Amino acid sequence: MRFVQFEEAGQHKLGLLKEGNVNVLGPASLDDLLAKGVDLVSYAAGAEVTGERSVEELKFLPPLTRSGKVICVGLNYSDHTKESNYEQPNYPTLFLRVNTSLVAHNEPIVRPNVSNALDYEGELAVVLKSGGRHIAKADALSHVAGYALFNDGSVRDYQFKTPQWTVGKNFDGTGAFGPELVTPDEVPHGARGLQLETRLNGEVVQSASTDTMVFDIETLISTISEAITLEAGDIIVTGTPSGIGWAREPKLLMKPGDVCEVTVEGFMPLRNPIVQEPARG
Amino acid sequence: MRFVQFEEAGQHKLGLLKEGNVNVLGPASLDDLLAKGVDLVSYAAGAEVTGERSVEELKFLPPLTRSGKVICVGLNYSDHTKESNYEQPNYPTLFLRVNTSLVAHNEPIVRPNVSNALDYEGELAVVLKSGGRHIAKADALSHVAGYALFNDGSVRDYQFKTPQWTVGKNFDGTGAFGPELVTPDEVPHGARGLQLETRLNGEVVQSASTDTMVFDIETLISTISEAITLEAGDIIVTGTPSGIGWAREPKLLMKPGDVCEVTVEGFMPLRNPIVQEPARG
Repeated sequence: MRFVQFEEAGQHKLGLLKEGNVNVLGPASLDDLLAKGVDLVSYAAGAEVTGERSVEELKFLPPLTRSGKVICVGLNYSDHTKESNYEQPNYPTLFLRVNTSLVAHNEPIVRPNVSNALDYEGELAVVLKSGGRHIAKADALSHVAGYALFNDGSVRDYQFKTPQWTVGKNFDGTGAFGPELVTPDEVPHGARGLQLETRLNGEVVQSASTDTMVFDIETLISTISEAITLEAGDIIVTGTPSGIGWAREPKLLMKPGDVCEVTVEGFMPLRNPIVQEPARG
Repeated sequence: MRFVQFEEAGQHKLGLLKEGNVNVLGPASLDDLLAKGVDLVSYAAGAEVTGERSVEELKFLPPLTRSGKVICVGLNYSDHTKESNYEQPNYPTLFLRVNTSLVAHNEPIVRPNVSNALDYEGELAVVLKSGGRHIAKADALSHVAGYALFNDGSVRDYQFKTPQWTVGKNFDGTGAFGPELVTPDEVPHGARGLQLETRLNGEVVQSASTDTMVFDIETLISTISEAITLEAGDIIVTGTPSGIGWAREPKLLMKPGDVCEVTVEGFMPLRNPIVQEPARG
């Protein structure tokens, strides 16, 4: 199943994507359903369809807007580690995002006024339906609610102002997430072998198979849970392959008027225009 | 005013500390009050006192348990930057904590089974009552709901496994927070000139004035908000001075049976015993 969230007349609505149309399942949110432990597939199967919308007319919301944790994995494709001039760590490189940094499909990614160094990072995100501590690798995928696309928009000069990347990864309006939450039954086991691509203004700038992750999804869930109790609604953003703009010569940065698109085969593309932060009065 | 939160008969309760006793203000939470924009001082002045408790009998909760962001500042005292072998950055070094890592006053800080490298970091935390983006330094303190103590317990070998400190700063049961949320009227302007001390088993291991922060509280709020929309309930943990155990020769690490205490003059001490993570069956 393919869930989407959207806003309509000020209401947060949940829908199910079916052949380009959206069956409205009423006012509900994936945040709440996951927090309550509701099985999404059973919920959708039993929910009354209250309307139908075309995908084109929707004002999308991110699949989740109040996650307890948005855990991002850096340096998880070895070609990207190399282009970034890091040694490949033998443990997942984690950083966190705050919910205020997230934007939905079609919403603008915002270039802040303090920097021109706005870069793309196409990624696959995993949303958990349950959590725990010390999750065995063999059980890890049983905790997955679904998968979504992510553009981990990065303000590079701020990312490298200090030893920690946090601020460069958390500017308002830089983390694009969506459009769909796709349940695991629609995706190969562990989301393996899927081609991930990022396009800037139609040109492919990143392309890699999810098979080439250094730490696969099972390993990420299991390893993170060695330290941290995972919870329903937590998001793990699994890292970007090589091809980032900052590592190119000359650098390729996103600017107002650009459009950035992340695709994974079998997923509806995540598409975002780039805009300049409004000037302050 | 001095707010405390505690659990009683499964209920989350709010209290006001007065001369060693706690006036119970009923079931309420600082998370909810701040999210609703309630002024804490007016709320407490108008709330009915439903009982009285002695501080000794309370099962404390952290002052907030569901903050949208727990933003920690690294390298914010130059002696600590030096002992950690970093160059002093001219921008705040930010990392994030997740709520699942927090524990209350008197609750154990947990040494995980995967590491012996558990270290203390006494700090002063700032809780926001309102937020925004691009907050001017001159307005920054008007957003402060209060101050609290923090022990940013760090699992050092995990902190340095990769270029990002995140995992070493987010183990379950490592971030001690509390006991009180002290409103700004009880504290010098900007919490300046307060002596911060950490004691391990009664011995002073860290001691510095909050005046020696590299970036003071106004600058932190203003600078972070250049990038990130701050919100009511967000926490900024302002950094630790020199004296950490990991930088000593020999290293001084926390072990089960130890007691760690963080004090700031005028605040009730934050005291936590250290326990070993239970073995798994």
